[in-house]
Amino acid sequence: MSRWQPDARGRLEKAALELYAERGYERTTVAEIAERAGLTERTFFRHYADKREVLFGGSADLFDVLGEAAASAPEDASPFGVVSAVLDVVADCFPEERRPHSRRRQAVIDAHPELRERELIKLARLSADLSAALRARGVAGPTAELAAETGVAVFKVAFGCWIGADEHRDMKTLMCASLVELRAVTAGGQG
Amino acid sequence: MSRWQPDARGRLEKAALELYAERGYERTTVAEIAERAGLTERTFFRHYADKREVLFGGSADLFDVLGEAAASAPEDASPFGVVSAVLDVVADCFPEERRPHSRRRQAVIDAHPELRERELIKLARLSADLSAALRARGVAGPTAELAAETGVAVFKVAFGCWIGADEHRDMKTLMCASLVELRAVTAGGQG
Repeated sequence: MSRWQPDARGRLEKAALELYAERGYERTTVAEIAERAGLTERTFFRHYADKREVLFGGSADLFDVLGEAAASAPEDASPFGVVSAVLDVVADCFPEERRPHSRRRQAVIDAHPELRERELIKLARLSADLSAALRARGVAGPTAELAAETGVAVFKVAFGCWIGADEHRDMKTLMCASLVELRAVTAGGQG
Repeated sequence: MSRWQPDARGRLEKAALELYAERGYERTTVAEIAERAGLTERTFFRHYADKREVLFGGSADLFDVLGEAAASAPEDASPFGVVSAVLDVVADCFPEERRPHSRRRQAVIDAHPELRERELIKLARLSADLSAALRARGVAGPTAELAAETGVAVFKVAFGCWIGADEHRDMKTLMCASLVELRAVTAGGQG
């Protein structure tokens, strides 16, 4: 982030979401987003490739957080112990003040198939990264993939609840509830 | 399938994979695929929207199988019992004689990011369909989503093993092993 433009990324993201809500995603231009943020188009393109990417800027942070958390989990942690530790740190990326923003963002994404596809791809990359981090710790391939995929599923379900209209519980609580539910579901036999 | 063109879809799929392997996916045209299959371009387009879709024709069958299996699972089956029943039927869609074909198909997909994205989207749709089938059986939303996502993870891991170069175990065995591994992984605590 440049020193003379404190939080240019955050301002662009906020401006973009306001405009997408006001006039629709299709009808919003990069020039308008930059103007609303009080920045130039050149600055926009220094941070984001296009108006779609503005919605996914936060995932770069998530990738960092995930990598750090996976690397710093206790050496003797089980594969799913690492995943739990990662989810715990990821939950901190979704503080209460971010919730209205996340709700608006999801409404835009849900309304556009190409944005939903983009989101799926980012989630798949999160899962692949988590799986790679587990393999780097010596976990066997299939186990690493299963642990990573289920971890991302736990996150998706918790996040879906968190942005629900009447949901007041925080992300940590919901992530924990989702994890407990996962264990109950997978323990529940073939019956 | 038209009466006078037995298995046009299968012939087009086989011809496409041969050509993708011989001259590369990019350099293969729909006209060439149709010619190799002994069919017309018009017939090609009656079955597939483009040369990308030929690789994903089989997923339509998977969707049918999944829906039928989920609907016909015992009424008192647990959410994951339904998922297990579905995986059991899905395994039958991958008989031994299909394995070389699946290996060739995956090699093409893995070499092309846009095909990998397409595959992710199909898998996400499978998960969404399975989740919807569970909700239709009265399973709560988050539970249905977790069960469906983990079910698809089990399938992905089993399928990844199945098409491995030296793998000889059948899909049913691998699906079962993946399921057992999932239970072990998710039961393995925070430790």
